[in-house]
Amino acid sequence: MIGNFTYCNPTKLYFGKDALEGLNEELPKYGKNILLVYGGGSIKRNGIYEKVVAVLKAQGKQIFEDGGVMPNPTIEKVREGVERARAANADLILAVGGGSVCDYAKAVSVSVHCHEDVWEKYFIRFEDVSCEVVPVGCVLTMVGTGSEMNGGSVITNHAQKLKIGHVFGANVFPKFSVLNPEFTFTLPKYQMISGIYDIMSHILEQYFSGTDDNTSDYLAEGLLRSLIHSAEIAVEDPLDYEARSNIMWTATWALNTLIAKGKTEDWMVHMLGQSVGAHTDATHGMTLSAVTMPYYRYLLPYATAKFARYAENVWGVDRTGKTEMQVAREGLERMEAWMRKLGLVMDLTELGATREMLDGMVKSTLIMKGGYKVMDEEDIRAVLSASF
Amino acid sequence: MIGNFTYCNPTKLYFGKDALEGLNEELPKYGKNILLVYGGGSIKRNGIYEKVVAVLKAQGKQIFEDGGVMPNPTIEKVREGVERARAANADLILAVGGGSVCDYAKAVSVSVHCHEDVWEKYFIRFEDVSCEVVPVGCVLTMVGTGSEMNGGSVITNHAQKLKIGHVFGANVFPKFSVLNPEFTFTLPKYQMISGIYDIMSHILEQYFSGTDDNTSDYLAEGLLRSLIHSAEIAVEDPLDYEARSNIMWTATWALNTLIAKGKTEDWMVHMLGQSVGAHTDATHGMTLSAVTMPYYRYLLPYATAKFARYAENVWGVDRTGKTEMQVAREGLERMEAWMRKLGLVMDLTELGATREMLDGMVKSTLIMKGGYKVMDEEDIRAVLSASF
Repeated sequence: MIGNFTYCNPTKLYFGKDALEGLNEELPKYGKNILLVYGGGSIKRNGIYEKVVAVLKAQGKQIFEDGGVMPNPTIEKVREGVERARAANADLILAVGGGSVCDYAKAVSVSVHCHEDVWEKYFIRFEDVSCEVVPVGCVLTMVGTGSEMNGGSVITNHAQKLKIGHVFGANVFPKFSVLNPEFTFTLPKYQMISGIYDIMSHILEQYFSGTDDNTSDYLAEGLLRSLIHSAEIAVEDPLDYEARSNIMWTATWALNTLIAKGKTEDWMVHMLGQSVGAHTDATHGMTLSAVTMPYYRYLLPYATAKFARYAENVWGVDRTGKTEMQVAREGLERMEAWMRKLGLVMDLTELGATREMLDGMVKSTLIMKGGYKVMDEEDIRAVLSASF
Repeated sequence: MIGNFTYCNPTKLYFGKDALEGLNEELPKYGKNILLVYGGGSIKRNGIYEKVVAVLKAQGKQIFEDGGVMPNPTIEKVREGVERARAANADLILAVGGGSVCDYAKAVSVSVHCHEDVWEKYFIRFEDVSCEVVPVGCVLTMVGTGSEMNGGSVITNHAQKLKIGHVFGANVFPKFSVLNPEFTFTLPKYQMISGIYDIMSHILEQYFSGTDDNTSDYLAEGLLRSLIHSAEIAVEDPLDYEARSNIMWTATWALNTLIAKGKTEDWMVHMLGQSVGAHTDATHGMTLSAVTMPYYRYLLPYATAKFARYAENVWGVDRTGKTEMQVAREGLERMEAWMRKLGLVMDLTELGATREMLDGMVKSTLIMKGGYKVMDEEDIRAVLSASF
């Protein structure tokens, strides 16, 4: 751990089958007006909405509804949410859903008392929050983004064909999050494995960077091994509580700043995937899986030692009698086989992307500079072309 | 992760060569009166005292001195510190030192505004804090206990021959901790390796328990691998910043509640070691190393599968052609060889313990019930006897 850094993560987590009872401890800390944010209504069908509303009412809260948050929340929806929060004079924004709902809640929370244009300020100019923030709490129903314990928020601007993430500071982190693995049981398999791959990608974006010896990389390897093990069980039996709970906990620690401490980060898989997402509106995790193998194979010559370490420590590849490059390649082969077995999308065509979109996707891919090779437009084109 | 749990760790950490600058961000949050707590004066010889005082003065603080905290802080010293804090009307207790100094600061912090007997309330009756807590900040100069990011405090009562730890809640966690690996450079080798083993033992106390599949165990394995790797480097070259920084970061995460989430914990190595410490006043980490091998070998038949997993995932033991017990034993052999190479004390005699103390040590060993085998007095006697 070579660099200077600070660490502070104040989010309180309630985990387990009884986690929702945490609301009774948290809600009294806030005023009466609750903006209740959720997605397309699945929480009404599976009973979670009713359970949450019952607790809110028992706590004497006034509920202001803000449903219909879409999987890739748009800037138009954020602007609408800001108006709702202002009209409600919201004391707390309670997000009930997955990462999109949490991300949306955070984007609203920093904008209610801000009179600049939200998209321009946070997602184009990447400015810090300079106004009062409405506190956010989460009840998680979908696992993957880690949004329940970080300051991240990814918002889509369809007019500009951009999907951009901003990382807000610790005062925008959810004050509390309720993590009940059973709340994720009803999720369709496609969403579940997409979330699992999102988690894996978060860990890898932070792992494939840096050249120093760093405890963060050892923690990342531990999370990866746990995830690989539990994902295989969950795909066979989505009602396996133990596996689903490990996946949920891994997701939280995969992206709550811990495993990035003291090192650089890559994030190009996410930049590629988000560009695909902006053009196709495809499920986030699947956009990541579809571009991963072409990107990592492209990166291999620039980071052979790290990919070999990955192969050995995460995928159990035996180094005996092999070159470093052979070990590294074998690790990626095992990873690819695992991804295919899990049922992840490995081709952009399957996500509705066409070769006609290639120019646009290349243009809207943001270039990050923390990885083993700083990509240029031609690199991006090569990787995206190989993803079809 | 089967059980219900909550997680909240609000301590802000400043890490790296410039970490002390964090004081400029933190100090303005507190009032003028600072109780400056430290140990035997090594911080005056190595210049850290001067650096801290310079920042305090520049921030316009009034300094009230409370030096002389001993390695195993006594309840008498705590009572004296409470009087000093009251006399100073302390707004912040700033602990500059290792785990003993941090532990002491926490014990004082919960007692300043409490008028019950501190020893009885917290260390005998294990009661919760029911009075106002004076905030604590830490500047760490010695690595091992994890006290910089948890609510733990271990206090010794020589009259009663007891050394007891109490875990206070999140409001007693240090508000901030300054972690500069260079501040640990001047530590004598004996203290350094003792601290390293304390870290390892913290991880193992949480690891050797529970039967469910748990992400916490994977994180523990990651921390152990990082520690083993960096410890070897630090023993060869104590000025290797990279290794010392990894050790420092590992120490923090080894005992800040994360890797215990969702599982039971053992802590019998600490109970045995603390009993030895109460009778000999020996260095904490060395009391742990001296009892570890006898205890783990005693435990082996009750937890063979876990010890085999440990052997494979942490020590790289190949399972091929071996029974589970053989794999487990080989792991412990590798661990023992590593401990001896590091220079850890492996025999109680070396710590000043005699066989005449055995009865007393057996009696003052607290029995914990979260491990793979609940010990009774005869078990304790057998393990301690084998530690000579």
